[in-house]
Amino acid sequence: MPTIVVEVMPKAELLDPAGKAVAGALHRLGHEAIGDVRIGKRFELHVDGEVDADLMATVEQLAADMLSNGVIEDVISVHVDAAGVAGETR
Amino acid sequence: MPTIVVEVMPKAELLDPAGKAVAGALHRLGHEAIGDVRIGKRFELHVDGEVDADLMATVEQLAADMLSNGVIEDVISVHVDAAGVAGETR
Repeated sequence: MPTIVVEVMPKAELLDPAGKAVAGALHRLGHEAIGDVRIGKRFELHVDGEVDADLMATVEQLAADMLSNGVIEDVISVHVDAAGVAGETR
Repeated sequence: MPTIVVEVMPKAELLDPAGKAVAGALHRLGHEAIGDVRIGKRFELHVDGEVDADLMATVEQLAADMLSNGVIEDVISVHVDAAGVAGETR
């Protein structure tokens, strides 16, 4: 079953408190190589049937309208993960 | 500046209430082509300097230990996004 992956990240100009907290914890643990950390969302939409251009256009619209908050978030990627969840790189 | 992307998803056998809510909303809006929806997390770790095998191993360990909860979540991917945030596919 094909899966459409939608990736949403907080806008670059916005403070991401959860990301800042993780970055702070990593630094306290001595992981100085890692600078900034930002935390976004990854949606997996499992599709019944084929993914065509129409469906991709619909999902891109849904990603912008429903899956993200345009005031604070950017949709950075909408792509098909043909292999599905089980086949993904671990 | 290179960015290491860590992708974390709820385990397949676990109910994902937020994902279920999104799927329900999409169905009510008539988007029947989309079946199940699952919502995970996407971390961007911005690295100061080069990403080498040592750092990747460290981040993979951190992803398993700190960025995910092994009881309910799987780390599905740890990869370098060389282009960084600005260059990502929109």
